[in-house]
Amino acid sequence: MKEDIFMKKIINDPQNLVDEMVQGMTRAYSSIVEQIPATNAIVRSDKASMQEKVGIVSGGGSGHEPTHAGFVGKGMLSAAVCGQVFTSPTPDQIYEAIKAVNHGKGVYLVVKNYSGDVMNFDMAKDLAAMDDIEVKSIVVDDDIAVENSLYTQGRRGVAGTLFMHKVLGAAAQNGASLDEIDELAHAILPNIKTIAVALSAATNPMTGQPGFKLADDEMEYGVGIHSEPGYRREKIKSSKELVEELITKLNEELHFDSRNKYAMLVNGMGATPLMEQYVFTNDVLNKLDSFNITPVFMKIGNYMTSIDMAGISLTIFEIKDDKWLEYLNYPVQTIAW
Amino acid sequence: MKEDIFMKKIINDPQNLVDEMVQGMTRAYSSIVEQIPATNAIVRSDKASMQEKVGIVSGGGSGHEPTHAGFVGKGMLSAAVCGQVFTSPTPDQIYEAIKAVNHGKGVYLVVKNYSGDVMNFDMAKDLAAMDDIEVKSIVVDDDIAVENSLYTQGRRGVAGTLFMHKVLGAAAQNGASLDEIDELAHAILPNIKTIAVALSAATNPMTGQPGFKLADDEMEYGVGIHSEPGYRREKIKSSKELVEELITKLNEELHFDSRNKYAMLVNGMGATPLMEQYVFTNDVLNKLDSFNITPVFMKIGNYMTSIDMAGISLTIFEIKDDKWLEYLNYPVQTIAW
Repeated sequence: MKEDIFMKKIINDPQNLVDEMVQGMTRAYSSIVEQIPATNAIVRSDKASMQEKVGIVSGGGSGHEPTHAGFVGKGMLSAAVCGQVFTSPTPDQIYEAIKAVNHGKGVYLVVKNYSGDVMNFDMAKDLAAMDDIEVKSIVVDDDIAVENSLYTQGRRGVAGTLFMHKVLGAAAQNGASLDEIDELAHAILPNIKTIAVALSAATNPMTGQPGFKLADDEMEYGVGIHSEPGYRREKIKSSKELVEELITKLNEELHFDSRNKYAMLVNGMGATPLMEQYVFTNDVLNKLDSFNITPVFMKIGNYMTSIDMAGISLTIFEIKDDKWLEYLNYPVQTIAW
Repeated sequence: MKEDIFMKKIINDPQNLVDEMVQGMTRAYSSIVEQIPATNAIVRSDKASMQEKVGIVSGGGSGHEPTHAGFVGKGMLSAAVCGQVFTSPTPDQIYEAIKAVNHGKGVYLVVKNYSGDVMNFDMAKDLAAMDDIEVKSIVVDDDIAVENSLYTQGRRGVAGTLFMHKVLGAAAQNGASLDEIDELAHAILPNIKTIAVALSAATNPMTGQPGFKLADDEMEYGVGIHSEPGYRREKIKSSKELVEELITKLNEELHFDSRNKYAMLVNGMGATPLMEQYVFTNDVLNKLDSFNITPVFMKIGNYMTSIDMAGISLTIFEIKDDKWLEYLNYPVQTIAW
């Protein structure tokens, strides 16, 4: 560690951080995941469960753990490619993951909408095409906070990506074809919406600096998972008041209707205790009560984090087909789902 | 929220924090847990799986989520009692939990070694005795950092308690009697040892104040899960150096031997990213390699937290009987295991 940066982090040399993280994860959970040699791509250990199935590959910059590698395993992702911190994985590593999980039925890529990721996953797709591996992809852009952003044209891809992983992973495990998975991905995408608030920024281990600074009594609405700006700063509010604003924003997109079914993900950003996440969840459920809505599927926890950022995101997914709910509930063998 | 305290927390009135947390958790996961009315005791929803079995009850102060309520469910705890933040639950609430999970085979209490918890769980045991409910208990004291402490005579009970929950929960699910569970608990206890480091203290939502202050470049060895003092402060070290010290301390207790089997729990304290926990795990596994030891069971994540404390604990459990490993691997239906 550089002597001039006193980061409050349990690491060794920041340059080796992702390599060491991948080794720690794959050694500790060798029955679930393994590393593709000489890469930071992580693939399902249980090869038998992937035979005759479409491979599902995701990935992106590191710092969002357990995303993405924590969702590799039977019934969910076939592989995840870990880039450097907040940096897209390189096309050659994505390509290695595609080759590793192709079993003749093609490979589907789940990409979060950041320019670097979109470009590198596309290049990997081109490399795979030269090998006659059929590859299709979806770009997830569930964050409703802002249009365009640092690193992004359009909307950002955030925690709602996990619903995409879960539904497509179950479909692939159940033998869906590449075309069926592509159709399913495009069907669910417009129904998954997320919005976040932040109380503090992540401290990037490569720089030792926080991504932004908020005053001691300040919060920001709509912050991204790489400390991208949101849409408003103000004095910190109660959980109830936050929920009021976030649900109002989500309702503008999804037009809540008590005749519909919804899934919900309350996602901690890294440093927000579960205690607070459950209080927030209680306020969300109370607010949804006013629409006569009780979600039929719920998860609360640290799923799509931003290193040590304090904050929370709320994802609502309108379930238009009971098959989608079945896929959400389909059993998986992963580290973190 | 008091206007004079700007806590960076997503909460409403701190006085209602635990009530709202329990409601959020039980509403979101109603298929797994439910609240005993008018208490903050949480009991397994699946009553059928508890028939003819010994009930296993744990609990303690809140602020350690997902401990304890996250481990209630088929195959693990029958009930958990949530006290106020860092405060023992009251005897009457523990007693309600005992009554709720007694099915004629008796109830076993897993208590972390803090004076308030020990006293209150004992009083609840006395209340249950007046109802002719047979109750036995174990006091977990796995933290090797210091003898005696704030709130504790002897050693503190920390993350190793989860191994106790897991092993006893599986034994109860498999029909072990109260005496058999008591014997098992006392057999495994001396083989479970934990030690922690902290980079920052928890901020208690009742006071808005951190439990202690460390300089920007400072860490402390042996801190407890309520910000109790450890045994040494110094400039922050690399993960490798931390591991070297922690493993040396654990070896003094457990006398590592490559002919033995070990389980390992790397536990984040709340604000320490999984990325760092996996780097630390990699260093632990490398260090254990030097003893020719590879743990046969491993878990990494935020299990026994201390609100938003940055830090990590390492628990090693020497598995002296293959039955214990079978119980560690026994499937459960809980929120957080």
